Amino acid sequence: MEIHQVRGHLTLTSRLDGLGHLPVKVLDSISGATLVAMDPIGVKPGDWVFTIANSAARSAAGDDRLLTDLTVAGIIDGWQTDKDESTNIL
Amino acid sequence: MEIHQVRGHLTLTSRLDGLGHLPVKVLDSISGATLVAMDPIGVKPGDWVFTIANSAARSAAGDDRLLTDLTVAGIIDGWQTDKDESTNIL
Amino acid sequence: MEIHQVRGHLTLTSRLDGLGHLPVKVLDSISGATLVAMDPIGVKPGDWVFTIANSAARSAAGDDRLLTDLTVAGIIDGWQTDKDESTNIL
Amino acid sequence: MEIHQVRGHLTLTSRLDGLGHLPVKVLDSISGATLVAMDPIGVKPGDWVFTIANSAARSAAGDDRLLTDLTVAGIIDGWQTDKDESTNIL
Amino acid sequence: MEIHQVRGHLTLTSRLDGLGHLPVKVLDSISGATLVAMDPIGVKPGDWVFTIANSAARSAAGDDRLLTDLTVAGIIDGWQTDKDESTNIL
Repeated sequence: MEIHQVRGHLTLTSRLDGLGHLPVKVLDSISGATLVAMDPIGVKPGDWVFTIANSAARSAAGDDRLLTDLTVAGIIDGWQTDKDESTNIL
Repeated sequence: MEIHQVRGHLTLTSRLDGLGHLPVKVLDSISGATLVAMDPIGVKPGDWVFTIANSAARSAAGDDRLLTDLTVAGIIDGWQTDKDESTNIL
Repeated sequence: MEIHQVRGHLTLTSRLDGLGHLPVKVLDSISGATLVAMDPIGVKPGDWVFTIANSAARSAAGDDRLLTDLTVAGIIDGWQTDKDESTNIL
Repeated sequence: MEIHQVRGHLTLTSRLDGLGHLPVKVLDSISGATLVAMDPIGVKPGDWVFTIANSAARSAAGDDRLLTDLTVAGIIDGWQTDKDESTNIL
Repeated sequence: MEIHQVRGHLTLTSRLDGLGHLPVKVLDSISGATLVAMDPIGVKPGDWVFTIANSAARSAAGDDRLLTDLTVAGIIDGWQTDKDESTNIL
């Protein structure tokens, strides 16, 4: 899975029916890439999130028939090391 | 999913039958890559689009037997942030 | 799908049976990568081709049991823009 | 599969149910990337590990319904060459 | 598929059962990446090999239940162009 910051949501003038009704978000990856993901959670611009790719992305969107290769799976709060030092995001 | 601008369509002198009859387009990705995708929507050179990769690309093309790993899934108009500022494309 | 120029075919001293009897070609990708693909079409060194990756690559090779993650799917002649200007390759 | 060093575990404020109860770890890849993986082994910060991606990642997590595209599969101790020289990690 | 040179085999202190009993090798890719692959052929350090990724990697390992996303599929001897000039490796 990869880590990204949410930039905003896409406005589409034409879209395939199979995309369903979940919002589609633009993400800035920590690798420098700009990606698009389905969002079943309801994330906001500025949120740090992680995404799941490929076949598991369809399950993550809640229906294996949905057309997606990248889905938001969680909002990141920070991380901890063995020393119990909590770091607030990245 | 990834964001690209449409460059044009491919002319092929030899192609596998399993590609079906959808047009095949050349895309310039915002990551700098040049890619080829099936187009079930009918996009035009200059359009900004997003694509779906891998197994969902076959469903997106309308028939899971079609040979594709990248399919155009929508035309992008712009995006909005929480502040309701709409940005016209990228 | 990605665009490549054919460099030549591989000579192998040991190979898995599941590779079948299709030729295996070395390709120079326009992204700069050197890749190996199955060739069900019979492409020649210098040809510009496009390839299909992952699960669709197995179908493209003609038998879903074949061991491949990249298969040549067509020979590229050029492309056209909306203005009907045809460009001869890349 | 790819090689990474474990940085720590993620704290999430919102997560999909399908992620199950395995810990989710942040990894520094030797390629320079920062990735997130499910951890069925119980690795510690500083451990060198290798991961399995995509569909096999779900099986590696112990249940094909789990939502993951990257799972820790083993802890690396070092490697040996033909000359029986053992190298302690990377 | 991609081309790599074999560096050595991995020694693991902890591994998932689903990895089975095939050796796990460290490969230096011609793209510059360092990767890990299952080896059903028995390749040696210094050998040039090509690998198969993702779902076909599991079949290539001999059992679709094995946990792998990259499997060695053949040892490369060299390649030929149309002019019948044989080049000894890369």
